[in-house]
Amino acid sequence: MLIAVLPGDGIGPEVVAEAVRVLEALGLGLRFEEAPVGGAAYKTKGHPLPPETLALARRADAILFGAVGDPDCDALERSLRPEQAILGLRKELGLFANLRPAKAFAELVDESALKPEIARSIDLMIVRELTGDVYFGTPRGRRTTDAGLREGYDTMRYDEGEVARIARTGFETAQRRRKRLCSIDKMNVLETSQLWRDVVIEVSADYPDVELTHMLVDNAAMQLVRNPGAFDTIVTGNLFGDILSDQASMCVGSIGLLPSAALDANGKGLYEPIHGSAPDIAGQGKANPLATILSAAMMLRYSLGNAEAADRIEAAVARTLAEGARTADLGGSLSTREIGDRVLACL
Amino acid sequence: MLIAVLPGDGIGPEVVAEAVRVLEALGLGLRFEEAPVGGAAYKTKGHPLPPETLALARRADAILFGAVGDPDCDALERSLRPEQAILGLRKELGLFANLRPAKAFAELVDESALKPEIARSIDLMIVRELTGDVYFGTPRGRRTTDAGLREGYDTMRYDEGEVARIARTGFETAQRRRKRLCSIDKMNVLETSQLWRDVVIEVSADYPDVELTHMLVDNAAMQLVRNPGAFDTIVTGNLFGDILSDQASMCVGSIGLLPSAALDANGKGLYEPIHGSAPDIAGQGKANPLATILSAAMMLRYSLGNAEAADRIEAAVARTLAEGARTADLGGSLSTREIGDRVLACL
Ligand SMILES: CC(C)[C@H](C(=O)O)[C@@H](O)C(=O)O
Ligand SMILES: CC(C)[C@H](C(=O)O)[C@@H](O)C(=O)O
Repeated sequence: MLIAVLPGDGIGPEVVAEAVRVLEALGLGLRFEEAPVGGAAYKTKGHPLPPETLALARRADAILFGAVGDPDCDALERSLRPEQAILGLRKELGLFANLRPAKAFAELVDESALKPEIARSIDLMIVRELTGDVYFGTPRGRRTTDAGLREGYDTMRYDEGEVARIARTGFETAQRRRKRLCSIDKMNVLETSQLWRDVVIEVSADYPDVELTHMLVDNAAMQLVRNPGAFDTIVTGNLFGDILSDQASMCVGSIGLLPSAALDANGKGLYEPIHGSAPDIAGQGKANPLATILSAAMMLRYSLGNAEAADRIEAAVARTLAEGARTADLGGSLSTREIGDRVLACL
Repeated sequence: MLIAVLPGDGIGPEVVAEAVRVLEALGLGLRFEEAPVGGAAYKTKGHPLPPETLALARRADAILFGAVGDPDCDALERSLRPEQAILGLRKELGLFANLRPAKAFAELVDESALKPEIARSIDLMIVRELTGDVYFGTPRGRRTTDAGLREGYDTMRYDEGEVARIARTGFETAQRRRKRLCSIDKMNVLETSQLWRDVVIEVSADYPDVELTHMLVDNAAMQLVRNPGAFDTIVTGNLFGDILSDQASMCVGSIGLLPSAALDANGKGLYEPIHGSAPDIAGQGKANPLATILSAAMMLRYSLGNAEAADRIEAAVARTLAEGARTADLGGSLSTREIGDRVLACL
């Protein structure tokens, strides 16, 4: 099995290195091949997603991704900015299903801004559509209105095939969890959401064992603060998923611990921590590698068919935390490498 | 001065009645004229925003609005649903600037899901654009793709005039507060947001005394959980404002206390509590009227040029709360009417 390793910018290389160490320690015979992405790729190759990087990602069985984002690139035109690398990989590889678990870690509920009893109850999975919506709809651009004014515009759109596909991922995810799926849209305003809701309801006929509910996005943003423990599985579009999944992560409190997966139709996937490139602490060995290590566990579970190895990593991370090992983001003083060492010791 | 009173659905009539009592008690010689709106209007007149209601709203100096939303109307086609009344009023009257304060009430910080020390720090104002964006952009609708699939689509758009106008409201609001304005967009993905950011920066040249920052919407959803006290004034588009303002309200904890204003270019406005029609408790005298009473105070301040009377109402509400008077939503047992009586007594 070939793993494409794309460390990217900022703290990406540091945290990815620890995840690779953990994967190697499992002795699964995985092969790793590295390529630049994001600002790092722009600086050396002139593009955030160079053709060789994309080719490696296509060839690989799974992709381990660090983070992209580099203040040096802020002034570049949009098509050359680091974020385009992740958008390009999603689109080119058809990674339409973003799985973002948000689950409280018992020892760390005090890290949350929410009251501990509320933070403790969080155990949800957001299934976010990742290759459609206003992120990719056309037409989009700038033009001049009849009144001679500059105008910016984008197209929000979904077709029934795209909605049904992510809805199925949502229902199947819920089947493996507490069998409750909440679909989030803005159907009282948006035509796109009206189609979304219709299709989710149609697809639900195939999943009679899953309880389906619907919620408007503004209400969802409220309920994720008020009572996040009430959610099991959430399915939503690309834009609402972007906002709500970050909100849910922060409710958990420790974003340095949260992994994510972006899957295609065949289970191939890109795995990345949800935190960004954190340029302010890059290169100092301060970053928390656990979100990336847990992303590697998701990779084993979803793309490499090795749930057992995934469980081992997750148990080792839980033990590491239970033993009190902490990087600075969680009030500790261990280095990125030291946390990696602890996880290896707990494996 | 003529006030259009549009009680609407659910608890709307009950809470609006108390706000009218408070306004009358001030002895300002205001005239009140009532008209149906929302589901109530659909049932009696066949449309959620009947022509006579719109005509009254146009004629009035300000509008006191209850809430719309009625489960009996769920099966109606979108154009007849209660929400269309509020969307129609905003668009027809050019109510482009939504002011949504979110401020902690000292006695009620325990109502928030956030830790008390975090909830206590909240004192922000969201300035949301209300007549543009994907809410109203065209084309929008349903069609069939070349592949024969149903497709739903909407157009997100802003022109520079719309952005500059709401940006000015944002800067002027910030000038009257702590002089910090955070503009929220998704410029790393959306063309509309790129224009938004460009124009906000251009307009900022006229407000050198206000410190302008920018934040991506996904990050904003995180920061509103992590550290909402760090925000002063926020300016954002219609869709992001819908989501973030509800999130911010819930961070305060007591949504039964939060008012809002929707203003046109001349200071005429529609004033409404941010809570909805709550059909489950309608007609039982349980609803909290304070958000609507505080909306009446905003009306005095922004549309009727009577900041002194606004201050009096706000002080009376604060005293009512300080004396421990509570409806059920805040753990008390007083009725809607009894809370109204208390506020009148404190005036
Ligand atoms: C970097 C950005 C384009 C991206 C997105 O908006 O999808 C990020 O916020 C994410 O959620 O992965
Ligand atoms: C009722 C609905 C159309 C409306 C909106 O989305 O603007 C509401 O959520 C609001 O925020 O006033």
